[in-house]
Amino acid sequence: MNQAREPNTTLLEQLRGLLGERFTTSSGVREHHGKDESYHPYAPPDAVAFPNSTDEVRELVDICRRHRTPMIPFGAGTSLEGHVLAVRGGVCVDLSQMNRIVQVREADLDATVQAGVTRKQLNEHIRHSGLMFPIDPGADATLGGMASTRASGTNAVRYGTMRENVLSLTVVMADGRVIKTSRRSRKSAAGYDLTRLFVGAEGTLGIITEVTVRLYAIPEAVSAAVCSFSDIGNAVSTVIQTLQSGIPIARSEALCATTMRALNAYNKTRYREQPTLFLEFHGSHSSVEEQARLVQEIAREHGGMDFEWATRAEDRTRLWNARHQAYFACLQLRSGTRSVSTDVCVPISRLAECIVETSRDIGKASMPIPLFGHVGDGNFHCVILVRPGNEEDLAEAKTFNERLVDRALDMEGTCTGEHGIGLGKIGSLQKELGEAVELMRDIKRAFDPENLMNPGKVVVMQDLGSWS
Amino acid sequence: MNQAREPNTTLLEQLRGLLGERFTTSSGVREHHGKDESYHPYAPPDAVAFPNSTDEVRELVDICRRHRTPMIPFGAGTSLEGHVLAVRGGVCVDLSQMNRIVQVREADLDATVQAGVTRKQLNEHIRHSGLMFPIDPGADATLGGMASTRASGTNAVRYGTMRENVLSLTVVMADGRVIKTSRRSRKSAAGYDLTRLFVGAEGTLGIITEVTVRLYAIPEAVSAAVCSFSDIGNAVSTVIQTLQSGIPIARSEALCATTMRALNAYNKTRYREQPTLFLEFHGSHSSVEEQARLVQEIAREHGGMDFEWATRAEDRTRLWNARHQAYFACLQLRSGTRSVSTDVCVPISRLAECIVETSRDIGKASMPIPLFGHVGDGNFHCVILVRPGNEEDLAEAKTFNERLVDRALDMEGTCTGEHGIGLGKIGSLQKELGEAVELMRDIKRAFDPENLMNPGKVVVMQDLGSWS
Repeated sequence: MNQAREPNTTLLEQLRGLLGERFTTSSGVREHHGKDESYHPYAPPDAVAFPNSTDEVRELVDICRRHRTPMIPFGAGTSLEGHVLAVRGGVCVDLSQMNRIVQVREADLDATVQAGVTRKQLNEHIRHSGLMFPIDPGADATLGGMASTRASGTNAVRYGTMRENVLSLTVVMADGRVIKTSRRSRKSAAGYDLTRLFVGAEGTLGIITEVTVRLYAIPEAVSAAVCSFSDIGNAVSTVIQTLQSGIPIARSEALCATTMRALNAYNKTRYREQPTLFLEFHGSHSSVEEQARLVQEIAREHGGMDFEWATRAEDRTRLWNARHQAYFACLQLRSGTRSVSTDVCVPISRLAECIVETSRDIGKASMPIPLFGHVGDGNFHCVILVRPGNEEDLAEAKTFNERLVDRALDMEGTCTGEHGIGLGKIGSLQKELGEAVELMRDIKRAFDPENLMNPGKVVVMQDLGSWS
Repeated sequence: MNQAREPNTTLLEQLRGLLGERFTTSSGVREHHGKDESYHPYAPPDAVAFPNSTDEVRELVDICRRHRTPMIPFGAGTSLEGHVLAVRGGVCVDLSQMNRIVQVREADLDATVQAGVTRKQLNEHIRHSGLMFPIDPGADATLGGMASTRASGTNAVRYGTMRENVLSLTVVMADGRVIKTSRRSRKSAAGYDLTRLFVGAEGTLGIITEVTVRLYAIPEAVSAAVCSFSDIGNAVSTVIQTLQSGIPIARSEALCATTMRALNAYNKTRYREQPTLFLEFHGSHSSVEEQARLVQEIAREHGGMDFEWATRAEDRTRLWNARHQAYFACLQLRSGTRSVSTDVCVPISRLAECIVETSRDIGKASMPIPLFGHVGDGNFHCVILVRPGNEEDLAEAKTFNERLVDRALDMEGTCTGEHGIGLGKIGSLQKELGEAVELMRDIKRAFDPENLMNPGKVVVMQDLGSWS
């Protein structure tokens, strides 16, 4: 008997008492909060709360805990593995109203924001300071959501992922304690690294309410380029050699011919419909020039065509918007489609091999499967286009992904570079880390003994949660 | 009654059976393993084991656990907060014989080593590959020890600390399980970040037996320089402005006039005995030239004298050796002395203020207190020279350090940038993170319910360990 699916009146009354109109059980709002960008079936929560402060989250957690009701934090709903689905009912904690930029400290190159602030909002806010927040997963995700999934994106080669760029978090724990994970200094050896423990925990260990992140000086010079190749292997080899030479490239994305075709159709652009690299260089004018020259030489050795440059800011924006729309553009290749997104990441020495083998597998599939990704990190995505409700498509997609995950694991890689485990990769995580997953369960049990924080995600806790 | 202090015969027999001559209770060896570089009083273990494989460590852990005997991992013994002292008796697990470089993967820019490999050994091994391991805490520490204390050092501004540079760990847990914390890909979003949890855990959660670290291409050009200032505030301000301008400086160390005097006396050098910056630039020839020019301009604005350059490799080696000997040189300022090393780290905007206030405090002290450190990270050390056995000196040193920690905490900094908590900063950790320390205890309890792994360090577990 799932208590949360038949919500307890006292619980609802208490939450309504706390939040007033910022608490709802309306079916429209619940529906909206029962899905993300993934293929996983809808699972709406029983109610949705919109707290606007850490204190309110703490009170909400206290109420839910007393009623043993699951809590599912929700940012922008752009996750790709079903992270926000209320698979065991409960209250969705939508943090989008916690969208205040608490403090920007230009001299320290950092900023503290509430968890509902999005990356674009932060960058807009600091635009005139000469600073930027570089982590860029494509979607305009919230910083809390990005921290929770250990997000990265196109800039990670140079600037790292959320793992490297979160300095400190405020977290409300399952028992209502409010924890600050760290001070604000650049480095610290003060005890266990709680910050890194909550980064990537997908809301299963507590609810992140504030995030302090690193900022960077906007580089003096930025230059982007597009370069086509006859085959994807050569494109990837160009990036690998660039990295191995220690050239500090900022972004290096590879897109397959199918993706380029989708991009052209979606954006009315005229890129060559061949395997392509999107590259970006950051630095001083002379260092950008030098990096670009060196990479161009490497590309030429691998049969790359001439670079098409985007040096003006608006051209670069157009280029990266096109890249960020790759996912949505690909969805249009087959109308009315949904997608299963893969996310493996392998050591760079195995990347070309992994992509070439995967391309062969794509050749045998019954549906279009565009491939693109952050090859500078060894991370790439296949967007497997499945017809909604078509069980055969979904089965084929899942088998394709399983083969891909197995291939990546055989190459000492991971099943997920940046999307996270959520609902979709729990089995893969077990395959990947084996006994280490038991330590994750130990931590979950220690922090959330009743399994109320986003239950059913990352690790399955069969021993916890009497409501399940 | 402390069982471990009167070792159980069966325990000794079993360990001798496992390790033969690589297990000893000789007082000389025990003495050597009962101290580190810190001021903390000797606390020798009851026995010392020298395992040479992960399997042997696992068997050793199984035996010790059956006898409820504490286990203290030991690397090079260069820690600075009493991390290796056997304050509750038990078996010291000296990993120095686990000094095999398991694999260097040049194409992936990574290497896997046994925990007893030192940073110099690794760098010597890869010297001809064009790669380097940049993390450099001064001492020739073991990689296992460096991971355990979340070490950093002079190169952290550019390359990060052990937090950013460990890709994966093999850890033997208190219950004998052998865990691999992560795959080898550059990034991953696969579950909780166990790697970062063991980095900095100081051996209290398990024994690290293998470490996979990132390597970097040796830069095409390296250039180092020394620059003197009339006061330390201006030296620090030069570094801060450099960082805020986004200049990718590799090393930026500040040393006070007292430290410079100690260095000259110790190394027979003729540096100006004034506040000084040691700087290093990495990159292509032109980018190094450009960085150096920009930093020189900034230094000049802050009253810096001309740069003295060290462009030849041997001159740079001499310069950084001098810097690394600062600690030992300072010890010679007062003969037969021991030291209390401080280690605060603050946001860079507060660094100049923190150092200037601390310098004022130094002026009032009864003993010499040289100050130097990794100012590019906001981290600096005071070496408080105390006469051994002199309680007044030690009391004064501790009070000085407490004032310094409080000053750093008031500035949103940390009590330890890189030395760790060990025995000496347990109270400071509580001040710094408050309730968050309770989460660390939860983790400790979950991973090591009998408190056998390096007990008494980082967090005090009064509820655990019946032998204490």
